[in-house]
Amino acid sequence: MTNDGVGSSAAGAVAPTFHEMWEELAALGRDPRTGGYHRLSWTPAERACVVWFQEQAARRGLVLDGDGNGNLVAWWWPDSASPERGRLDGGVVTGSHLDSVRGGGAYDGPLGVVSALAAIDVLRASGVRPRRPLGVAVFVEEEGARFGVPCLGSRLMTGALTPDEAARLRDATGTSLVDAMRQAGHHAELGPSLALLRDPVAFVELHVEQGRQLADLGAPVGVATSIWPHGRWRFEFTGEANHAGTTAMEDRHDPMVTYAMTALAANKRARLLEGRARATFGRVEVEPNAVNAVPSRVRAWLDARAADERILETLVGDIRRQAGERATRDGTRLVVERESWTPAVEFDPTLRDRLRLVARVAVAGTGFEAGEVPLLATQAGHDAGILASAGVPTAMLFVRNPTGVSHAPAEYVDPVDRVAGVGALAAVLADLLRH
Amino acid sequence: MTNDGVGSSAAGAVAPTFHEMWEELAALGRDPRTGGYHRLSWTPAERACVVWFQEQAARRGLVLDGDGNGNLVAWWWPDSASPERGRLDGGVVTGSHLDSVRGGGAYDGPLGVVSALAAIDVLRASGVRPRRPLGVAVFVEEEGARFGVPCLGSRLMTGALTPDEAARLRDATGTSLVDAMRQAGHHAELGPSLALLRDPVAFVELHVEQGRQLADLGAPVGVATSIWPHGRWRFEFTGEANHAGTTAMEDRHDPMVTYAMTALAANKRARLLEGRARATFGRVEVEPNAVNAVPSRVRAWLDARAADERILETLVGDIRRQAGERATRDGTRLVVERESWTPAVEFDPTLRDRLRLVARVAVAGTGFEAGEVPLLATQAGHDAGILASAGVPTAMLFVRNPTGVSHAPAEYVDPVDRVAGVGALAAVLADLLRH
Repeated sequence: MTNDGVGSSAAGAVAPTFHEMWEELAALGRDPRTGGYHRLSWTPAERACVVWFQEQAARRGLVLDGDGNGNLVAWWWPDSASPERGRLDGGVVTGSHLDSVRGGGAYDGPLGVVSALAAIDVLRASGVRPRRPLGVAVFVEEEGARFGVPCLGSRLMTGALTPDEAARLRDATGTSLVDAMRQAGHHAELGPSLALLRDPVAFVELHVEQGRQLADLGAPVGVATSIWPHGRWRFEFTGEANHAGTTAMEDRHDPMVTYAMTALAANKRARLLEGRARATFGRVEVEPNAVNAVPSRVRAWLDARAADERILETLVGDIRRQAGERATRDGTRLVVERESWTPAVEFDPTLRDRLRLVARVAVAGTGFEAGEVPLLATQAGHDAGILASAGVPTAMLFVRNPTGVSHAPAEYVDPVDRVAGVGALAAVLADLLRH
Repeated sequence: MTNDGVGSSAAGAVAPTFHEMWEELAALGRDPRTGGYHRLSWTPAERACVVWFQEQAARRGLVLDGDGNGNLVAWWWPDSASPERGRLDGGVVTGSHLDSVRGGGAYDGPLGVVSALAAIDVLRASGVRPRRPLGVAVFVEEEGARFGVPCLGSRLMTGALTPDEAARLRDATGTSLVDAMRQAGHHAELGPSLALLRDPVAFVELHVEQGRQLADLGAPVGVATSIWPHGRWRFEFTGEANHAGTTAMEDRHDPMVTYAMTALAANKRARLLEGRARATFGRVEVEPNAVNAVPSRVRAWLDARAADERILETLVGDIRRQAGERATRDGTRLVVERESWTPAVEFDPTLRDRLRLVARVAVAGTGFEAGEVPLLATQAGHDAGILASAGVPTAMLFVRNPTGVSHAPAEYVDPVDRVAGVGALAAVLADLLRH
């Protein structure tokens, strides 16, 4: 690849604006010690990102709309002089999310929002006058880092999560979702809100790739084929608190031991599936969490994913069974509760193939040697997956991440690849707005 | 055993006062949901216990003294009419601590303090006029539940912990010991303060037994022979934060997996030593502790104890070695730091034998059938152990705990056994004050 074409392409013309937007956003919610971002939903840092988005929309004359769940769309309406005035449904929607995990990277979510705004600038600079509305969506709590349910905003929007289920969610400090929204000055009215998207002909989400497939293939942009089925299970191991010195080893009911075996078993079983599965215990809570006390309780969350639902069910079933057997041996009790579940998603094949064709031309136009736009399956959940499951024609563009790291400060997109991403997205949106 | 003798003995006469004291103290720092006590040092709950102690001392005309570390002694001076007026050193000290672990029981610590006050009432009711001063000590932060170093107060008093080491301690929220003391309105002046005890001829700590040895032997009171050597080691496992879905199992550097194997190895190795060792991981901290992120770091604290120092060194060395080998395999890094160490303690044999003889008569006098006062080794650290290591002639009395549970709400002492404990302590103190 070369940089030569960047400055002379349409995408190149908007690069400074992308850069400015990126720099403004980069300062919000960043831990200067680690470089990681802490933008949990409804916290001041995440709200600052949302305010920043509202300002960007206003600067572009986009019209903001929102629902009672906290999801937002900034609309570029068709020119009022156009014969289509009044026909506001059947548009095209792009966008992503602005929240992060604790200590996450800069790109997961924001890249899709900033690229969408930059793509509008490209379309306008190219003289595109849309005949359909174009919306830039920001979905709330995509990561599930605060309330434990990933894609919380899009699940509420599509009805995949009921308002009652959402009302029961609590963050780590016991604050409910509705209270968190209220504390952020937002009036909560949880419930289905797909009307906010106005029956779109397509939703296209651009996202940083969360692995190294594009880097290995030497391609700046790819198109998603599917999302693995995945879910979260809370394993609650209960034993008996006791003194770490005076309690004989054989008299203990130590839930930490049962948990430790379960974490090892999960890792081993996922490895045995040779690339077709993932199993992770990333969150643990211990009571009383004192050095000199055998714990009374260990809560641990299993994140499990697999290439298909049958493999995933077998994997989680095996882990549960092994944990249960060990609990019996340790004299502890095990309760497992599924906290979230996302079935396999197959993106719209027609839309996907069209995207791939258009993106290929656009990427070549931003200065890269003409090459494949690879098709990729992803193991990560996305709002696009939730919308696809609800029947919205949906596609995803991935942008290369040379480190392959995700949910951590090392997550990265090269500035030249950012331009290629914007170029591909702009071309795809222009194509969809024309048809 | 029978209850018949309780009401007619000297100890029986004071029982209501013990009961009143116990009821007052029982309300402080209790979680009504679990019944567990949260009396971490320098918190309002623990300070309320200290204020209660100061009131009890004042009600009895005891003279309070304290050091800059937060340790307290309430003195019963010899009668001013006695020929020994002015000779205030060479007394006898008893007492224990008032802080608890998180979610601890009611007896660990407070039983020794309340029994000491009750024993003074017994001695006075019996007409004892001491020729030496008798002190009731309350040592601060015995559990190490807030700042990580058990017996913090007595270690500072004896110089086993230096003021510089103590000044570096932080609680879980990052507050330093000195700041915590200041926030509780206490002027910190950390450093050696053994003079507070006035060169005692003996220190005797009464404590709830933290196992089931006395229960199994059918004895209400026992005498300690020794304390196992014990320590705390912080294991810090560092890996690489990453996405729980997109990161292939074989590309991970997951410190949770290394930790899990280490926790299992510690448990297994301690079991293999058949009653001669303990190894516990009771406290764990995970970063970022998110369900969908492979952790970047797991910190876990090993509490290890053994019948002698050689066994303990081998045990901890084996656990470290296994953890290090697994870290290499997992692509994670391991750093181990010893946070505290308490060598083996052998209590003064002459004092121990005298205590045993006197306690035997006293226990029989409180209505129990005459029986052995068993000698017990303990696996738990105590301020008595720290003082013994500093050269103070020291002994311990244990009172039966029918559940054997410690550091948890199920910890218990039967009211009749509490009276036997006070009777034994009063007799032992009277004997020591006479000689």
